[in-house]
Amino acid sequence: MTPAPSGPAAPTLEDPVPATRLGGDLPFASPEEAAALVPATATLLVSGFGGVGYPKLVPEAIAAADEERELTVVSGGGVGDEIDRDLVESGDMARRYPFVPNETSRGAANDGRLAFHDRHISRLADEVRFGGLRAGMRGETIAVVEAVAVGPDWLVPSTSIGHTPAYVGAADRIVVEVNRAQPLDLARVHDVHVRDDPPNRSPIPLDDPLGETGGPAVRFDPEKLAAVVETDRPDDPYEFREVSATDEAIAANLGEFLEAELDRNPLLADAVNLQFGVGSLGNALMGALADVDFGDREVAYVGEVVQDGLLDMLDAGDLRGASATSLALSSEGQDRLFADVERYAEDVVLRPADVSNAPELIDRFGVVGVNSAVEVDLYGNVNATHIGGTRVVNGIGGGGDFARNCRLGVVALPSTAVGGDVSRVVPLTPHVDHSEHDASVVVTEHGVADLRGRSPRERAEELIAVADPSFREDLEAYRARADDGGGNTPHHLPSAFSWNSTDT
Amino acid sequence: MTPAPSGPAAPTLEDPVPATRLGGDLPFASPEEAAALVPATATLLVSGFGGVGYPKLVPEAIAAADEERELTVVSGGGVGDEIDRDLVESGDMARRYPFVPNETSRGAANDGRLAFHDRHISRLADEVRFGGLRAGMRGETIAVVEAVAVGPDWLVPSTSIGHTPAYVGAADRIVVEVNRAQPLDLARVHDVHVRDDPPNRSPIPLDDPLGETGGPAVRFDPEKLAAVVETDRPDDPYEFREVSATDEAIAANLGEFLEAELDRNPLLADAVNLQFGVGSLGNALMGALADVDFGDREVAYVGEVVQDGLLDMLDAGDLRGASATSLALSSEGQDRLFADVERYAEDVVLRPADVSNAPELIDRFGVVGVNSAVEVDLYGNVNATHIGGTRVVNGIGGGGDFARNCRLGVVALPSTAVGGDVSRVVPLTPHVDHSEHDASVVVTEHGVADLRGRSPRERAEELIAVADPSFREDLEAYRARADDGGGNTPHHLPSAFSWNSTDT
Repeated sequence: MTPAPSGPAAPTLEDPVPATRLGGDLPFASPEEAAALVPATATLLVSGFGGVGYPKLVPEAIAAADEERELTVVSGGGVGDEIDRDLVESGDMARRYPFVPNETSRGAANDGRLAFHDRHISRLADEVRFGGLRAGMRGETIAVVEAVAVGPDWLVPSTSIGHTPAYVGAADRIVVEVNRAQPLDLARVHDVHVRDDPPNRSPIPLDDPLGETGGPAVRFDPEKLAAVVETDRPDDPYEFREVSATDEAIAANLGEFLEAELDRNPLLADAVNLQFGVGSLGNALMGALADVDFGDREVAYVGEVVQDGLLDMLDAGDLRGASATSLALSSEGQDRLFADVERYAEDVVLRPADVSNAPELIDRFGVVGVNSAVEVDLYGNVNATHIGGTRVVNGIGGGGDFARNCRLGVVALPSTAVGGDVSRVVPLTPHVDHSEHDASVVVTEHGVADLRGRSPRERAEELIAVADPSFREDLEAYRARADDGGGNTPHHLPSAFSWNSTDT
Repeated sequence: MTPAPSGPAAPTLEDPVPATRLGGDLPFASPEEAAALVPATATLLVSGFGGVGYPKLVPEAIAAADEERELTVVSGGGVGDEIDRDLVESGDMARRYPFVPNETSRGAANDGRLAFHDRHISRLADEVRFGGLRAGMRGETIAVVEAVAVGPDWLVPSTSIGHTPAYVGAADRIVVEVNRAQPLDLARVHDVHVRDDPPNRSPIPLDDPLGETGGPAVRFDPEKLAAVVETDRPDDPYEFREVSATDEAIAANLGEFLEAELDRNPLLADAVNLQFGVGSLGNALMGALADVDFGDREVAYVGEVVQDGLLDMLDAGDLRGASATSLALSSEGQDRLFADVERYAEDVVLRPADVSNAPELIDRFGVVGVNSAVEVDLYGNVNATHIGGTRVVNGIGGGGDFARNCRLGVVALPSTAVGGDVSRVVPLTPHVDHSEHDASVVVTEHGVADLRGRSPRERAEELIAVADPSFREDLEAYRARADDGGGNTPHHLPSAFSWNSTDT
């Protein structure tokens, strides 16, 4: 038996805040020394989600080193420039999963220089462990993760959890970056439940979306801890664009729909568990929820990321609380949360991404999910990831987890793109992320298309009614042409992509 | 309080077989009398899954009646001619969910005469209860379900469970057909767990796929029981086609892949939980599994339907047991099972379809799922439902539940259709049921395309290698043309459907 490592024990649910950021006899290293541990061919499993909580100095040092590497990089979700810009520009990143919100890595994927595939967030932890990324996991597996504190066999994550628990479990060696720019009290928001393995996996032990199961500590085998690097570099977080008149019109239509649904859907009789997708539109919609009359119902956010709009709702007392895997706030939002983290921690809980996005919990909590898209077609198929069917933007992220498993799914999007020149309601999406089986309700600034129970032909009618008026005639013409060929889902394939054939 | 209804109590897990088929003071009716209870506009929630266990005499009597009706018909899965032929031909069926394996209802859907939409099996129970079929649920809701026994507030399902528990719970009134053609001992195979409601829904209390949670009884409000009809008409079950040389070649490739995976995947170290899709190919593949060397591992079937191939495996001692929602056997298979139901019941358990197909259980049991498809495209998008992108065949059924949630998903299909004239590996599927995010491994008679961890460009290479040799050159030419346009998922949209533009 290995003797217990020296140093303080891991913090717990009852006593979540570690006494010190650096507990015990740790293998301190400079970023360059830690970078040198990474072989020429390796798989880096990095922390980070929603652009925060990612390691910064070690990836930067790998990129700066003379050594040429061929790395697979797997993150939880979106990360910063030190990973998705620097490692691409240095030529060290050969493969990437599951998300590319950064323009450099996205550009490389679209040019065929970076082997990228976007994966469902909920499944990634298992995919890393059970061969789901088989061709991509090459060489030694090294977890490089950010923490606010570390001990000999534990760490406390920083501004996101993502898949850190699974990644340190799966890694051959572990490198931890301890970030002093983030408050140690972040430990209060973390609730780390680690799932056991199939085929006798236990249910996730939560009966309330805001419930707590564990403490803030991510445990690991102390033998694997290869380096601890200190830093005080802040995250490079989200910048939200200004709320537009279109956003406001979408929010108003969504609000009206939700109020009608509160009246008629027994699912929402006593409580409402809401999820909104990542991004500026999602953030704007969250903010607009303050205007919805939820009556006596308890309202909670049960999603993937905490964005600025949620802090507004929490401050206004409109929300019972929020469960997510990342604090994907703007710089101002981070300042606001960090200044008052002990208070926010009473209502906010971060979980591993395979818990926040677990199909099982989204189902059990009856989540109402609102997600955006690139475009939607006449039958409710949703393209959430590819411009013109070919050029990836970001990746599917958790959109599929929520679209599939929530009890009421809404796709919210503006009816046009490119300043009104391109319709986002199209005859046939050239890429499908959420199929017609997963789309229930589509909201644009022109209204609500309630697809529930409608046949494909009826769906087309509903969707044309929420398209931009200047495109409705052309959509009707396509529909008439398609009807000639018959079928439960009529199409005229030779002209189905005539709207997509130019670069949008 | 309503006084307890008179009659025998419901059978239990300990004492599953009712003493009598007809217990207590029941509202007996002729098929015609029961049919007369159905108003001109109504929603029929019918039992049946995999072509068995559906009500026969009452739908037939509705179709035969002079009254003109406008009915929505919601089944669990596939049902027989009395529903999907007679009610369509009589003009009484206006809307249909979630499946049309019958040529009459399928034809009506494809001609636009029947409003049809295919839905995920796992979600249907909740959709019926929480507005998921909103536009389609019209008029009074009447459950018409087959049973082998009925009491004043309970029934025991016959050859399938499907969504019967949810349907009798959601219905305004209940009509039960008691079928004497099926052995009362079928009670021994049923395990009825009824899920509670979100947003505080409990996990499904199973830690073993063959575990038992309840008895064979489906409970209902005795006030709702409107009619009990007796019958001895047998099911009109599946006919499997002969196993072809192509099936055998696919089975051999699948077997080889599974054996390699047993060696390398920790998921399968101790036990293997397998699911196979419904149909002749699925049945043939199941039968072929007897040749796979599973070593000391315990192997169970954890799927949707028990087909004849599974009985062979059970008889050979190759399986620990099977969990499903339907005994979708051929006539010979039914005879074989009925003759020895007490013995088979030791190893076979039927569950409600929202349990057999629950994402939560498919995940927790680490299921290896093998499903078929109409076609697959160069990037792993799977069309499982639409010929030529327009004409529906059957519907998605439980394919999406397993493709999304199983830990290892295999799509098994012949490389060609129409006697070799049409490739089933195409540039772009004109309909997508399982997206590229859900496809891991594709098996044809020409080999195995292991897509795990591969970028879209790499996937195309893998998939062309398992296409029929006579189509590979054309697929390569498409790929080269697509590459010119760039993108993470290269396409040449103007020619993407040139292969699909004729009727296949």
